[in-house]
Amino acid sequence: MYTKRNHMKQKQVALASITIFGAKGDLTYRKLIPAFYNLFISHHLPSTFSIFCVDFLAVDDAGYRDWLLEGVNEFSRTGRADAQKWTEFAARITYVQGDFMKKETYSTLKGQIQKFEDKQQQRGVRMFYFAVAPRFIEVIADALCNQKLCNRDTLDRIVVEKPFGTDLDSARKLNRYLSKRFKEKQIYHIDHYLGKEMVQNILAFRFANHVFEPLWNNQYIDHIQISVAEEVSVGRRGGYYDSSGALRDMIQNHLLQLLCIIAMDCPKAYEAEAIRDAKIKVLKSTRIYNTEQVFKNVVRGQYAAGVVGGQPRRAYREEEQVKPDSTTETFVAARFFIDSERWKGVPFFLRTGKNMAKQSTTIMIQFKESPHKIFKDDITPNQLIISIQPELEIGLLFEGKVPGLHMKLLPMEMDFMYKDAYIESLPEAYEALLLDVLDGEATQFMRADQIEWAWKVVMPILNAWEKSPKKQLQSYESGSWGPTAANAILKPFAKEWFRLNHEPLSELAPATTTANAQTTAANAEVTAAT
Amino acid sequence: MYTKRNHMKQKQVALASITIFGAKGDLTYRKLIPAFYNLFISHHLPSTFSIFCVDFLAVDDAGYRDWLLEGVNEFSRTGRADAQKWTEFAARITYVQGDFMKKETYSTLKGQIQKFEDKQQQRGVRMFYFAVAPRFIEVIADALCNQKLCNRDTLDRIVVEKPFGTDLDSARKLNRYLSKRFKEKQIYHIDHYLGKEMVQNILAFRFANHVFEPLWNNQYIDHIQISVAEEVSVGRRGGYYDSSGALRDMIQNHLLQLLCIIAMDCPKAYEAEAIRDAKIKVLKSTRIYNTEQVFKNVVRGQYAAGVVGGQPRRAYREEEQVKPDSTTETFVAARFFIDSERWKGVPFFLRTGKNMAKQSTTIMIQFKESPHKIFKDDITPNQLIISIQPELEIGLLFEGKVPGLHMKLLPMEMDFMYKDAYIESLPEAYEALLLDVLDGEATQFMRADQIEWAWKVVMPILNAWEKSPKKQLQSYESGSWGPTAANAILKPFAKEWFRLNHEPLSELAPATTTANAQTTAANAEVTAAT
Repeated sequence: MYTKRNHMKQKQVALASITIFGAKGDLTYRKLIPAFYNLFISHHLPSTFSIFCVDFLAVDDAGYRDWLLEGVNEFSRTGRADAQKWTEFAARITYVQGDFMKKETYSTLKGQIQKFEDKQQQRGVRMFYFAVAPRFIEVIADALCNQKLCNRDTLDRIVVEKPFGTDLDSARKLNRYLSKRFKEKQIYHIDHYLGKEMVQNILAFRFANHVFEPLWNNQYIDHIQISVAEEVSVGRRGGYYDSSGALRDMIQNHLLQLLCIIAMDCPKAYEAEAIRDAKIKVLKSTRIYNTEQVFKNVVRGQYAAGVVGGQPRRAYREEEQVKPDSTTETFVAARFFIDSERWKGVPFFLRTGKNMAKQSTTIMIQFKESPHKIFKDDITPNQLIISIQPELEIGLLFEGKVPGLHMKLLPMEMDFMYKDAYIESLPEAYEALLLDVLDGEATQFMRADQIEWAWKVVMPILNAWEKSPKKQLQSYESGSWGPTAANAILKPFAKEWFRLNHEPLSELAPATTTANAQTTAANAEVTAAT
Repeated sequence: MYTKRNHMKQKQVALASITIFGAKGDLTYRKLIPAFYNLFISHHLPSTFSIFCVDFLAVDDAGYRDWLLEGVNEFSRTGRADAQKWTEFAARITYVQGDFMKKETYSTLKGQIQKFEDKQQQRGVRMFYFAVAPRFIEVIADALCNQKLCNRDTLDRIVVEKPFGTDLDSARKLNRYLSKRFKEKQIYHIDHYLGKEMVQNILAFRFANHVFEPLWNNQYIDHIQISVAEEVSVGRRGGYYDSSGALRDMIQNHLLQLLCIIAMDCPKAYEAEAIRDAKIKVLKSTRIYNTEQVFKNVVRGQYAAGVVGGQPRRAYREEEQVKPDSTTETFVAARFFIDSERWKGVPFFLRTGKNMAKQSTTIMIQFKESPHKIFKDDITPNQLIISIQPELEIGLLFEGKVPGLHMKLLPMEMDFMYKDAYIESLPEAYEALLLDVLDGEATQFMRADQIEWAWKVVMPILNAWEKSPKKQLQSYESGSWGPTAANAILKPFAKEWFRLNHEPLSELAPATTTANAQTTAANAEVTAAT
């Protein structure tokens, strides 16, 4: 009953040194250390390990550990840390003060790692996590290389966070830079969406079952919608975000990765290269738009003031570190086509936005109508709904007979909710992915060529918008489902965006009402840029 | 949003006389009058109607109505009757005392019906329900014909209950007898299984959705199991049952009808003739066995003593009116094949029995394994589970990733339960079917040729058993899942009978245990007849 991954557990490393560059950063505080702590208490970390946390600020080990504990207590999925376990765990954490730009930092680090390994009389796995601003990636990579800190390709790995460049050229340049210093298999490009339970489940769902894959093509599927709606604003990330935007921040990575998983052919094997080969085939077949097509197939929006979850939100242009005349998009809706035999003519609708009505990452596969027209009722086509967050759920919308004395049909939903079956809190994406890195398992990570191909897909859009920064830039009210202009790209393929705020139909919603929140909530549409 | 049936509501008859032959019988008491009462209180009966209840016993209207009220109070799904509504309803019931064999009975009845219609100055619909022993069918039919009580083919209908003959010859003879006296469309052969909510839903599920019908063939389906397990013993029906047996009593009608609904092609239209044409095509393609094949493909059993639901049960041969050396089967398990393009090579496993561990009518469609073998886990093939009673549920078993840090697969179940969505009590099968008769809607009734073809399918089995009454007759403990010999016919196609006592997998049963109630419960197997 165990897969390759489980078999690999037996090969699990006994000794590892983990280095985090950016020790005082948000990611370390909120995600990395809580994830390592949870891996530790669930006995998933190597029996012997040490965590070296490198950053510029002056702080002693004790003070640094106390600060990390606050982060664990606030952000760990398992709640407040157990005092004894935390003490055990924290004893393995060493703070290494140093400037990323200076050579001494790395020689100090090297001394520490070697001391740790010498004590174990063993050369262990070395993992270097780049939780740093993009401008530091190259200098750190170069130093690791020069210091021969990361020179054994079977043992040593670096983990790089997005953004992987800001466009195709910079991504290529970065890839070339890294590939001169490390073997491809040493480089882990992390996209935490790929570590999410439900995303990992999609592969199992598609390829371990025989009931959906035969229907997974243009003969049966009408269209597919991938939505990543965020309730949050840009918050304190205004400075970064304003030079990035939703296309770079979300579409180029998370949403295109989800597209790959949904649209890919069955990989030849469940292993990293085969899976990544299958995924990149999707990106290579994705239609590349010219400028005219960009404005026909892609809608961008920027949030105006409004209310989200009862709280007032200011307009994007009033956010900290955002230019008051910014044309950066906080919402994108795009129609993509994959020019393959399987997907010919099937539109993939992707959308993402900030300050939206509700947080939801959901993939909806809409099937075609049954060719059997023997019932006089209006038939709602089948929908397979994969909810990735906040709920983990797979549901199938089908037409059934309403109980009663007449043959009346209505959509009903059968569903499986993880929370009904698994009451324990689920591992965070970072836990799964960090453990993967330690195990040398790259299945859920992006290869450099995938990243470049994803840039190739979005480049014409970036270029078109850069050339005409105000053209068709829509405003949408915070707390809505985005600009109504996003509905236009559905035509003539689909009627409406999947309602992310849908109540389970099994609880007897009259799913046939035509009014819906999406079309009504975005009444405040105006064209922003003037 | 309404189907043909709903449109027909507008044509619903305004005036009807309903005659029940067998007024003092169990069926009238437990099923028919409670059903008519519920149709009445839910405003489904014609605005003007009268119910004439004919039987031999001397009883006055008041006494008869009081007795019926007891039946309603005990057996109606809506609970005790409302006093005022019952009074209104009961006022329409007239008891007609008479011997079914005597002409006067019918002339009295005719007088009553005509008086009722004259008062309305209208000739209404006339429905004659034969809730009588089979030996009375012909005489009543003849009298109705002679008295011209049932002579308008658009208005007048008879309803006949099973058994429709005791073998092919007697069924043919009965059909010929009736067809000489009535038009085909006047004859309603009732099989109350066809009126069950979930059975009616199968047509909707199969033909109003586009996700299953493309898989509904031998390329994707491994095998199908249809189980009708009864907890009840033969009870007071020992006399009838001992000359009938499970094959005649259940397989020839209920189970073969379920087989037809599951296996049929899409009818050309949702109307009686098209549906019955599609169904009979299944029976005509069902493989007819020779004697040797009978003993290889069909298992019969007879219950020994045991315990059902905590209550001790005596052996079948000790039941009232059962011969102490009876070889009548109370359990049948059969493997059928449908020789059509769609179903070539797909076995259909049917089983039914009395005194079994748990009441359950369930259809399980087992799909083939996915051809993609990229996971190392054992894969449980998909199952679509249609639970007809006691639960009304559609579930799909699929392989999913167990939440956690490893790609471990386990079967999970997504399901839709009617009781979650529809909290009101559902109409009984008899309500749906009686209303159908009043509406002249024959979709859910069997045509004479279907009945004859069903007999053709079972005749070689009846004949083989009659010739060798003791051969391979198995004994099974009351409260088990039948004789273990029933497992043999699954080979080499299937591993095990579907576990009718299954807990929803969504509640995290480790569905991979190999031990199961079915194989363990039937340890007490002995070969009965000696």
